[in-house]
Amino acid sequence: MAFSRVARSGLRRTGGTFGKQKGIRVTPQYQSATAERIVEESESEFDEPRYPGLEATKPGEKPRVVVLGTGWAACRFMKGLDTRIYDIVCVSPRNHMVFTPLLASTCVGTLEFRSVVEPVNRIQSALATSPNSYFYMASCFSVDTDKHEVYCETISNGGLPHEPYQFKVAYDKLVIAAGSEPLTFGIKGVQEHAFFLREVNHAQEIRKKLLLNLMLSENPGISEEEKKRLLHCVVIGGGPTGVEFSGELSDFIMRDVRDRYTHVKDYVKVTLIEANEILSSFDVSLRQYATNHLTKSGVGLMRGVVKEVHPKNIVLNDGTNVPYGLLVWSTGVGPSQFVKSLDLPKAPGGRIGIDEWLRVPSVEDVFALGDCAGFLENSGRPVLPALAQVAERQGKYLLELFNRIGKHDGGKAFSAKDSVLGDPFVYKHLGSMASVGRYKALVDLRQSKDAKGLSHAGFVSWLIWRSAYLTRVISWRNRVLRGGELGNHPGFWQRQFQDRIGWDGIRWFTQNMSQQWRC
Amino acid sequence: MAFSRVARSGLRRTGGTFGKQKGIRVTPQYQSATAERIVEESESEFDEPRYPGLEATKPGEKPRVVVLGTGWAACRFMKGLDTRIYDIVCVSPRNHMVFTPLLASTCVGTLEFRSVVEPVNRIQSALATSPNSYFYMASCFSVDTDKHEVYCETISNGGLPHEPYQFKVAYDKLVIAAGSEPLTFGIKGVQEHAFFLREVNHAQEIRKKLLLNLMLSENPGISEEEKKRLLHCVVIGGGPTGVEFSGELSDFIMRDVRDRYTHVKDYVKVTLIEANEILSSFDVSLRQYATNHLTKSGVGLMRGVVKEVHPKNIVLNDGTNVPYGLLVWSTGVGPSQFVKSLDLPKAPGGRIGIDEWLRVPSVEDVFALGDCAGFLENSGRPVLPALAQVAERQGKYLLELFNRIGKHDGGKAFSAKDSVLGDPFVYKHLGSMASVGRYKALVDLRQSKDAKGLSHAGFVSWLIWRSAYLTRVISWRNRVLRGGELGNHPGFWQRQFQDRIGWDGIRWFTQNMSQQWRC
Repeated sequence: MAFSRVARSGLRRTGGTFGKQKGIRVTPQYQSATAERIVEESESEFDEPRYPGLEATKPGEKPRVVVLGTGWAACRFMKGLDTRIYDIVCVSPRNHMVFTPLLASTCVGTLEFRSVVEPVNRIQSALATSPNSYFYMASCFSVDTDKHEVYCETISNGGLPHEPYQFKVAYDKLVIAAGSEPLTFGIKGVQEHAFFLREVNHAQEIRKKLLLNLMLSENPGISEEEKKRLLHCVVIGGGPTGVEFSGELSDFIMRDVRDRYTHVKDYVKVTLIEANEILSSFDVSLRQYATNHLTKSGVGLMRGVVKEVHPKNIVLNDGTNVPYGLLVWSTGVGPSQFVKSLDLPKAPGGRIGIDEWLRVPSVEDVFALGDCAGFLENSGRPVLPALAQVAERQGKYLLELFNRIGKHDGGKAFSAKDSVLGDPFVYKHLGSMASVGRYKALVDLRQSKDAKGLSHAGFVSWLIWRSAYLTRVISWRNRVLRGGELGNHPGFWQRQFQDRIGWDGIRWFTQNMSQQWRC
Repeated sequence: MAFSRVARSGLRRTGGTFGKQKGIRVTPQYQSATAERIVEESESEFDEPRYPGLEATKPGEKPRVVVLGTGWAACRFMKGLDTRIYDIVCVSPRNHMVFTPLLASTCVGTLEFRSVVEPVNRIQSALATSPNSYFYMASCFSVDTDKHEVYCETISNGGLPHEPYQFKVAYDKLVIAAGSEPLTFGIKGVQEHAFFLREVNHAQEIRKKLLLNLMLSENPGISEEEKKRLLHCVVIGGGPTGVEFSGELSDFIMRDVRDRYTHVKDYVKVTLIEANEILSSFDVSLRQYATNHLTKSGVGLMRGVVKEVHPKNIVLNDGTNVPYGLLVWSTGVGPSQFVKSLDLPKAPGGRIGIDEWLRVPSVEDVFALGDCAGFLENSGRPVLPALAQVAERQGKYLLELFNRIGKHDGGKAFSAKDSVLGDPFVYKHLGSMASVGRYKALVDLRQSKDAKGLSHAGFVSWLIWRSAYLTRVISWRNRVLRGGELGNHPGFWQRQFQDRIGWDGIRWFTQNMSQQWRC
């Protein structure tokens, strides 16, 4: 079965829509298929020498696992995969992993950009050093599950002999962990005018825009109204990312902007707009705590649904006009164009459908995990939330499954043995966390939204939040932790720990949380 | 006398050529005047309310010094200016100073980007905090010396009410320290295809391009020839910057690339092309040392003059074809379009002509310094080289002159008193330095090219080179030095010092050099 041929021909024929940008593009910009549909297309198109690639592995060679993506799921999987058994080929438009929950802090300088990323070939060194393992900085645009091949295009041409530069990679096993895309609900103007907060370059652009607006607003002759607009930061979406970003931004204004931009400091304002309630998945007492804390920190909370986004203002459904200088969009994620284009079984919500072993049924040797995958309806399980916690746990589960079947000679294409699959994947929610600004966070340890359980808010929660994630960053790194690596102010936050709860407390929290989060 | 009206009207009428780029543009892209010349232009154009600005200071108000630029000269000047006497308005497309001699090291990760920049409002905090001092992120495009006004345009529009957003600033004293531009000698293709190394974003782009090419070259199906091209780094120009960059690049390849990109490591090559001799201003023995060291480090040295630059190859005057993947252009600097457009007296080479007190003769209250200025022929002095050393010394000289005339009530427009000018500026060359890669550098302490004097090459010179510049970085900062600030490997280079020459030696070198370099 060769699928996704429409998208494939559409993509190929829109030639040059990929890879036009100079430099490294870290955001995938999958181009959807054009209206032109070529039905009578030669099947052998990718076999021509002008589409070079890695052919199927020969008997005696190690099986080749092709991994699409470099997010939490893909990286956790590759990190632990037994490279004595498998060769790995990773295809992604991004050559690093991003510790996404810490991204909001980098926009305002609380954390360094380099603290929240890790190059993929440090996570799995075989990609750089093993003779038959590779990292390809490219986007996969089509999969042929019959032929066991994926088709890719480099993210930048850079003067390569063909444009766009496409190639194919044959796989023994395919692991799709290609992530998700921000939901914009088809609202006009979002893509053009709003910033997202999913990649390091997004955070860098938000930071630049903020500083630029601060400086523009100082120019002579700018009216009062215009200054207010330029320095009005609007965040759409009251989930953990939106709340964390609002909190960090507000702290940044209180702490740094007041000293460094005294001419315009009184014009800066942060507004968080949410259609329902902020942090709706959290316990009611935590929600109330977050609301109070944000309000106290100067974040304006607003109920509303965005109707249209214009370059300088948004219009809400009730007609309210909200002028803005910086707009950050954080209303959750959904399936990417690439995932939509795949002719694979789908889970509710449009993700790639998987069974309890993370396999894509109806095709052989294909697995999917992370944000792009969801349990099929007939599995009787709910689609899991798009969380780092879920992705990481699935990556860990799948690598163990792969190492097990690999040891039983099930690594090669068409050689899967159900007998060695082992237990199905079970997800146990360890709790939700969200920071609401410097030194304050929420920790909700309930198993589900309706369950009862521990919840906590305040400084201790912030310590738990921060140490849980920073512990994860550290544990991902194969390097010794160096002084100054964790924050913009080395020693600062260690000192906060020490001053307030002592080293024993820190050790307890860190160990406790990192054990809970260990996957 | 209103001058530069042609350029001014040309620029205005090309409306929108500035400030089209999203985010903060750190490189000025002065647009030259178009062919359209409007002679009969209303003189009152900038007095209309749509060109807002700062009007002339009133009696009783502090005199306003307008500074164009944020390089070594401008920043040194602003750092020490007495803000009890003067208000400062700084206009520059860049909101930070760059420690240019350390830029080459940032491309390959030896130093962090943030280690080599300093925000201008940390250098002179009055810009951010004083009620009538400002930093405007804008480009000056015209000066009216009669009216004592400069005309500026914001570097990004950001949705401001007019596009382009222009404004004027009246001055009591004007300090032009707007720097220079890379010389391309009108060679076809240089602007389009080569990278320069003058700003932090240049260094970031070079680094990205290098990593991108390393990753592209790993893609399947890339021919041997194509891999060689992609990974051929060509540096044009054998001055200190070109030599330092070649050396750093070569070290980076030896040290990091071999481990991290084992699949393609043998294809990486660095070639330095120079028309004459490398480091021609240095002592002959130092030149020989540099040549030997670079060759030993794997840098190919090539004699040649570039005729044309194409996207994938350069052609030399003798017809030689040199394919490249990364091209860095470093053949010195010359007057910028802005400086060329000014109808002021010019020094040999096209810089703004100045007298011994750094004044621009024939107009009142205008001073010029740094790379954009040169002594007039009738002063009997040579035009000084475009060095940080010169710029910084001139900045120091001028701030003392300003503080002196300010104390004698000479700060306001048209109130200069020659009697308090003091001694003219005298430049004493303290020597030249250049690194030729990790741990090796040259120090030439001769007063001039033909003089005799001390010269030294090797590890100790490298220590001097590095400590001299890092000492400067530190001395510029008003903050306490934090661990890990100086390098990518905190403690690393301190350890190198300690291991090899002990702390006493370091202290001696640092003090000695920083004293020599103190301005």
